[in-house]
Amino acid sequence: MFIGVDLGGTSIKVGVVSLDGKILYQNSKPTYAGRDFQLIIRDMIEQIEDAIDCVNIGIDEIRSIGIGVPGIAEAHTGKVIYCTNLSWYNIPLGEEISRHFGKPVYVENDATVAALAEYVAGSTKGIKNSVFLTIGTGIGSGIIINHKIYSGSHSAGSEFGHMIIGENFYNCNCGANGCFETLASATALIRYTRKRIEEGYKDTNILRMANGKIEDIDAKIIFDAAKAGDSLGVEAVDRMIKYLSIGIVNIMNSLDPDRVVIGGGVSKAGDYFIQQVDDAVRKLVLCKEIQYGDIVLAQLGNEAGIIGAAFIGENII
Amino acid sequence: MFIGVDLGGTSIKVGVVSLDGKILYQNSKPTYAGRDFQLIIRDMIEQIEDAIDCVNIGIDEIRSIGIGVPGIAEAHTGKVIYCTNLSWYNIPLGEEISRHFGKPVYVENDATVAALAEYVAGSTKGIKNSVFLTIGTGIGSGIIINHKIYSGSHSAGSEFGHMIIGENFYNCNCGANGCFETLASATALIRYTRKRIEEGYKDTNILRMANGKIEDIDAKIIFDAAKAGDSLGVEAVDRMIKYLSIGIVNIMNSLDPDRVVIGGGVSKAGDYFIQQVDDAVRKLVLCKEIQYGDIVLAQLGNEAGIIGAAFIGENII
Repeated sequence: MFIGVDLGGTSIKVGVVSLDGKILYQNSKPTYAGRDFQLIIRDMIEQIEDAIDCVNIGIDEIRSIGIGVPGIAEAHTGKVIYCTNLSWYNIPLGEEISRHFGKPVYVENDATVAALAEYVAGSTKGIKNSVFLTIGTGIGSGIIINHKIYSGSHSAGSEFGHMIIGENFYNCNCGANGCFETLASATALIRYTRKRIEEGYKDTNILRMANGKIEDIDAKIIFDAAKAGDSLGVEAVDRMIKYLSIGIVNIMNSLDPDRVVIGGGVSKAGDYFIQQVDDAVRKLVLCKEIQYGDIVLAQLGNEAGIIGAAFIGENII
Repeated sequence: MFIGVDLGGTSIKVGVVSLDGKILYQNSKPTYAGRDFQLIIRDMIEQIEDAIDCVNIGIDEIRSIGIGVPGIAEAHTGKVIYCTNLSWYNIPLGEEISRHFGKPVYVENDATVAALAEYVAGSTKGIKNSVFLTIGTGIGSGIIINHKIYSGSHSAGSEFGHMIIGENFYNCNCGANGCFETLASATALIRYTRKRIEEGYKDTNILRMANGKIEDIDAKIIFDAAKAGDSLGVEAVDRMIKYLSIGIVNIMNSLDPDRVVIGGGVSKAGDYFIQQVDDAVRKLVLCKEIQYGDIVLAQLGNEAGIIGAAFIGENII
């Protein structure tokens, strides 16, 4: 059995996971981000002890502990290089947990963990090469190459959200302009729509659908407006599809995976949206004669964080 | 020993290569591109036979034959999916050569072959993860992951030249707009400079340096002008550096290799040019605290095509 930990800005979730990827037990506590890291680690240890007790096993039956974090971490040493949400920089997370339990501890980026969860128990089960994109407020990503996690030589890879693919009217938090996540995330969609309304775009129901409050315009409203034929809704969604397609084409032309998986909030826009992205991608790939990988929706939900984390140790090079 | 074949649009080069990456003998013949593929294959077989004879060995001492082609090929089956220069589509190159010699034959893209040559005997010797860019009329690329060639699930990967990174005033041959190679190759540099002159840019010596013939403006003239402080030369080279940096940042943020290698004609612009690209890259990478891979010039010259091809069989998954 494995322990999988999903450490987020809001909650710490811990699960006991079977060798075939089933969650046997899980618990959750608020993270209270901003606390001293030692306090967060103490809570995490308590949750792991609770989980082991509750499934009535001993620690010797645990093969390894894996932790997904919203940031960049060295998988093998378990050092968290940084987590903006938690204000963590160079935190020896893996070392502390490993010292307590006497077990190997692996730490990875949460989007990479979600990619692995899909590989273990979801949309890319058993598939050799895949790229996972989680599209919400930003764009996170994970790469599976030759059945293993790939995070690069300095644990800084698989950050497709920061691939520069054009020019944008606002800069990314990372300081660059034109990052994929500033052009094709839910945030990108919302900011573009608000900007157009602020510029004086009138022939749209979107502001009304948000009860006249520009700050209440969200991705669902914009997608609903687009489906109903609202001209600004269509314009904003078409722009998002254009850039999402460019990002995926860049993945096809560089990594040429068997499959690209879309998860995160935007995946709720559903099959119609994915179909339009797929059509646009096929027109832009380098070699039209080649049947590139397919584009599918993620299959796992909230449990991906625990399942993927549990399997890090089994799937790193 | 291995046989390495560098099949180009102009010449077919064949070499016998030792296990430690030395060329023991090589010969070369014109390709006469456009001929029936059987005639090209016949010449290639003759050249291989000649090479084996000339080093006084038997065919049993050859472990495998590798061939680099200017297009997309399936490494294991040896099928060339397409080579624009040769007008080849779905040519069973590997099968024909393998049937003749009774040896395993592997076929790969020429930029991937050059990446492998650098790994075997050049700038990335023994390095786990690297990306090679050959920048000339276009941008070719090769990926080494975990000490092996990586070309994706359909042999269509490592085409970073067709990564879309912005908007451009002309479309790429592939049909897309904003491909890396249309913004950062020698061709991109030349086309941009010519366009600016055609638009009426006067305060420049570049046209004079080409003896008043706009069609004679080449990359060397533009680089020389930039070094001498010519304002259009500086503008055009700065634009190229901007886009070359964006392309490399995208490689850092996605694959995070140990090293990025620059080869091809543009690498002759030298250390000063690379230093400027390097500086620009460091400002754009996602995590400024991380020491990403370095950017270096390729070490091998014309012999890369033979050396790299020879080692394909030893370095594919």
